[in-house]
Amino acid sequence: MQAAEIKQDNRRVVIEGVRPEIDSGRYPIKRVPGEKVFVEADIFTDGHEAVSAVLLYRKEGAAHWTELPMTPLVNDRWQAEFTVEEIGRYQYSILAWLDHFKFWAGNLVKRLDAGQDVSVELLIGANLVEAAVPQAQEPQKLLLKAYVDALRTVSVEAVQRALSEELAALMFHYGPRDKATTYDRELAVIVDPLKARFSAWYEFFPRSCWTPDCRQSTLRDSVERLSYVAELGFDVVYLPPVHPIGYTHRKGKNNNPVSQEGEVGSPWAIGSAEGGHKAVHPDLGTLEDLRFFVKQAESLGISVAMDIAFQCSPDHPYVTEHPEWFRHRPDGTIQYAENPPKKYEDIYPFDFDTKDWAAMWSELKSVIYFWIEQGVKIFRVDNPHTKSFRFWEWLIAHAKRDYPDTIFLAEAFTRPKVMYYLAKIGFTQSYNYFPWRNTRAELTEYLTELTRTDVREFFRANLWPNTPDILTEYLQLGGRPAFISRVALAATLGPSYGIYGPAYEMCENTPTAPGKEEYLNSEKYEIKHWNVRDPSSIAGVIARINAIRRDSPALHSNENLHFHNTANDRLIAYTKNTDDLQNIILVVVNLDPAYAQSGVVDLPLELFGIDPQQPYQVHDLLTDNRYIWTGRSNYVELNPRNLPVHIFRVHKRIRTEQDFDYYR
Amino acid sequence: MQAAEIKQDNRRVVIEGVRPEIDSGRYPIKRVPGEKVFVEADIFTDGHEAVSAVLLYRKEGAAHWTELPMTPLVNDRWQAEFTVEEIGRYQYSILAWLDHFKFWAGNLVKRLDAGQDVSVELLIGANLVEAAVPQAQEPQKLLLKAYVDALRTVSVEAVQRALSEELAALMFHYGPRDKATTYDRELAVIVDPLKARFSAWYEFFPRSCWTPDCRQSTLRDSVERLSYVAELGFDVVYLPPVHPIGYTHRKGKNNNPVSQEGEVGSPWAIGSAEGGHKAVHPDLGTLEDLRFFVKQAESLGISVAMDIAFQCSPDHPYVTEHPEWFRHRPDGTIQYAENPPKKYEDIYPFDFDTKDWAAMWSELKSVIYFWIEQGVKIFRVDNPHTKSFRFWEWLIAHAKRDYPDTIFLAEAFTRPKVMYYLAKIGFTQSYNYFPWRNTRAELTEYLTELTRTDVREFFRANLWPNTPDILTEYLQLGGRPAFISRVALAATLGPSYGIYGPAYEMCENTPTAPGKEEYLNSEKYEIKHWNVRDPSSIAGVIARINAIRRDSPALHSNENLHFHNTANDRLIAYTKNTDDLQNIILVVVNLDPAYAQSGVVDLPLELFGIDPQQPYQVHDLLTDNRYIWTGRSNYVELNPRNLPVHIFRVHKRIRTEQDFDYYR
Repeated sequence: MQAAEIKQDNRRVVIEGVRPEIDSGRYPIKRVPGEKVFVEADIFTDGHEAVSAVLLYRKEGAAHWTELPMTPLVNDRWQAEFTVEEIGRYQYSILAWLDHFKFWAGNLVKRLDAGQDVSVELLIGANLVEAAVPQAQEPQKLLLKAYVDALRTVSVEAVQRALSEELAALMFHYGPRDKATTYDRELAVIVDPLKARFSAWYEFFPRSCWTPDCRQSTLRDSVERLSYVAELGFDVVYLPPVHPIGYTHRKGKNNNPVSQEGEVGSPWAIGSAEGGHKAVHPDLGTLEDLRFFVKQAESLGISVAMDIAFQCSPDHPYVTEHPEWFRHRPDGTIQYAENPPKKYEDIYPFDFDTKDWAAMWSELKSVIYFWIEQGVKIFRVDNPHTKSFRFWEWLIAHAKRDYPDTIFLAEAFTRPKVMYYLAKIGFTQSYNYFPWRNTRAELTEYLTELTRTDVREFFRANLWPNTPDILTEYLQLGGRPAFISRVALAATLGPSYGIYGPAYEMCENTPTAPGKEEYLNSEKYEIKHWNVRDPSSIAGVIARINAIRRDSPALHSNENLHFHNTANDRLIAYTKNTDDLQNIILVVVNLDPAYAQSGVVDLPLELFGIDPQQPYQVHDLLTDNRYIWTGRSNYVELNPRNLPVHIFRVHKRIRTEQDFDYYR
Repeated sequence: MQAAEIKQDNRRVVIEGVRPEIDSGRYPIKRVPGEKVFVEADIFTDGHEAVSAVLLYRKEGAAHWTELPMTPLVNDRWQAEFTVEEIGRYQYSILAWLDHFKFWAGNLVKRLDAGQDVSVELLIGANLVEAAVPQAQEPQKLLLKAYVDALRTVSVEAVQRALSEELAALMFHYGPRDKATTYDRELAVIVDPLKARFSAWYEFFPRSCWTPDCRQSTLRDSVERLSYVAELGFDVVYLPPVHPIGYTHRKGKNNNPVSQEGEVGSPWAIGSAEGGHKAVHPDLGTLEDLRFFVKQAESLGISVAMDIAFQCSPDHPYVTEHPEWFRHRPDGTIQYAENPPKKYEDIYPFDFDTKDWAAMWSELKSVIYFWIEQGVKIFRVDNPHTKSFRFWEWLIAHAKRDYPDTIFLAEAFTRPKVMYYLAKIGFTQSYNYFPWRNTRAELTEYLTELTRTDVREFFRANLWPNTPDILTEYLQLGGRPAFISRVALAATLGPSYGIYGPAYEMCENTPTAPGKEEYLNSEKYEIKHWNVRDPSSIAGVIARINAIRRDSPALHSNENLHFHNTANDRLIAYTKNTDDLQNIILVVVNLDPAYAQSGVVDLPLELFGIDPQQPYQVHDLLTDNRYIWTGRSNYVELNPRNLPVHIFRVHKRIRTEQDFDYYR
């Protein structure tokens, strides 16, 4: 503090160390309706006086704060919690004051215990109560006045009434809040729709073929696939870009820089004479078809996520209409995308710093609004880290103000600080490093970072075992058992997860070359044919996992994720449970796709309220097998040739007739 | 961010996670001249572009910032350091920008490696260099122009010159700082005098007798004691309050609520008809005596610390002159100090919230300034936590602005958050929990908190094994070996430490009652007689320890404090070293005052640059014994009947003739 700045400052109460608070309150935390915000702070004052504090919260725009009394924990730490009920923005802060009455009452007890004369003290107390009268309404005003009179009698009855709970409550509400300090920040909560936290995504290319005699599919054909997606239990369908695709420098099969006549090109090379970001590719159908697809999906409980890739093919109408939106080289050409020495000549990136930025940003925003008006509420944003941070912050703030139920998933496979920053400035969900976390140690460390540090307040991981760009070595080498274990991990470690199918359930795992993560004959550059009813598909397992997810509230969040010892590094074990312990899920996965592994799972039974001396039942929801376990440590064996995964529901006691279905 | 607030924001570079930064920059960090400030931050941008960053710093009031280039570490973390040279206030911040030239040059290398044509790239580079010309002065302007011309030749030579170190350096300095972001806070450093970090305090009561036929001593008598204090190696003398002492409710011997005629009372019951906080007690002498004492101390390199106890005896002139500065009870009496059920009727606390606060705060500030004008620069502040935080913040900010070489030691034995808060708002040094940290685990944990967390940036612990109020159970039960080990711990763990003497060196350890921490016949309430030349005194050991401290730069700070295993919980071992490893001190203390203890000290030789295969020498600076050790683990035994402490200097190699004194 500068000497010159100092005036008398009446805020004698100190409020610091507030949590949750991201980067000094610069960024909001995230919740969905019905979730709690546990707020803690260090609150204290000089001198010996007592402090009282309330948590303040309100929906943004509400005229008044709601007050909730805070409770002291230990070491000057105070706590309170509130529940956010509606989608939108909430604010919270803290108010604390010197509570002279509480201090006085506490001292009165000590004086009485020491046998001291308290006559003068009772008069002091009467004055304190009298000071509360003006703040109270009838009938509390009358009650307080009666207490004043009683205290002034300086009698045994006065003492009793001085320490009554009723008076304490009245004084908490109406007592003068002396030297009140409001925390100097109003912190914000973004409340997103439920699918921001709990969602199962299914990505597919609508142009690909799922029937034998098909040459190229449309959005209308894709409508029929929705029942398959629903059968598998997914509730978000994500479509790669559906816009017209450029011709100039169009990529051929397997990312060939030269394409042959008739090749379909990459959907991410957006724009041609047929239209840009607001158009539907004529080969896929019409805008009406898209709206119909969205509507049909909705009727099955499925939301449609669109791909937002803010980049242009050289043929995009923007390129001729707004050449100033792109960077030009000294030879007069437009700068294509590159990451030297790699060149992406089929793509022109926008210049977010163009002098015409205002018009350009506004136009790009209108793209999002356009699709929202067609019924789309979820956007999977392609490589947001290669565009302007400030643009996204502005865009998402506007979109969430006008359409609070929108969801933006950041596809930024980049450095950790950049990924976290995108989440801070607005992205609702984020792709992340899950595809490359394969060992028990890696998974435990990463999920702990995501769920046990401040990161969990603003970064919602959406776990994908594969994408059209990511066919991991683990899946390449591990085959079918690896596909089953990775989808089980994603679906149970992540309240939100997704797969790129049908490649995933068909266990498609041939890379372009050893050591590469690209798919051979990638669907990005050609029409694929899938036989999703092939008996080798693992769709059945995925459907079962999604059904378990839906029926297991413990899997709807990461609030209570705990990892457990297994005495074997190839076996990972973790539990999730609801706060009320009515739903406890134990997942055990054999991370070794080649060999059977066995071990001993150690469970902290005391956390679950299970008596370690009594038998209890674990019910494998995948196979419907039930086991009786006793004590903390129990034997598990998983063979990748069968199922490499247990998803147990832990029952607190063994099965009795009351556990049978007909009894529930 | 609110949607409504958003404008185009050109600051494309993100700067966050800055350290050191206390509570979002609300409070300054602390240093002494010559110390470094290591600054780190996460710095990154969107897109692929390169970032450059400089650390900015300046002495407060300087017209310009000094810039130091920051270096990238890993994971978008950047670092730079600056040294504070002068007492006063410094500020620091960070500036980062998009460095298009650096990005271009890096890409140029990649393109060349891939054998690509770079003609257009060289033209782009020429344009980038040309943009730097206007910022440069001659002769750099000419140099840059020559580079522009060379690049435009689009030749082999152009490529070579494009990648020259000279051009890189010119462009770092003169290249346009595109989309520059300045960190949104200017962080502050308080630079205190050296004694703020490194000081050895000696407290004594000037009125007590150190000679056989004395009845009560004066400040003039105390002048003679300064040579004793200097002999012991202390460089701060702290005097309890020297002001007139009140008569009303004066405390008698052993804190008796009733005093007898002739009893001297507690120096902390300040003020009588003879004067208040600006007066010297007539029994101690005159203001001139005090000034003489300060001057004589200074000539011995000793600073005098005064006690600032802002409270009044009922006889203080303030009480009659400014009754409104104190709180009144309904019965018309002034509220005395109390902590119910305890009463301190000899003390009236100030009411810092009085309506007349401005006059009162100003008067109290004038007390500090008055003593500064007498030559006193160090103030040991009594119970600051029972006075107003806001008052201290204001007072110390003013005092440090007008007299930057002042030091304020907070005597607040209270809850941890409150102690830390006092340090944040201005106190230079702080009393702390050291007296009650006795086991190896306790000492290790506490010193780690003080020296390895953010606490070290603002909280300077001054370690006291005893005070007139604190005779710990450890000293009571442990006797002489405990007094030696505790002073050795304080002096080597704390760059600043102090003792209350001569009680300490005389190993005075009789409490008022078992389980109490008060001294029997406490010097606070009566004139004590000390025979400081008694052969049982441990003054010799203390003098030796202080000499070792003075001669061992490693002990002047806590920068490199490391604790080591000993295979015996009763033995604590730790090292401190200078950054250059020229001075390495190993301290081993037997914490058991009753029995000899032995163990094996494990040293991380690699940290010290010692070859574990070669012998090296440890030289006990207390006893002058030298030992040859080899390897990490070496045997140590300490008997409390002799010396319970080793203070070794670790020499990197065994002694040769060059280690003898005559060779140095």
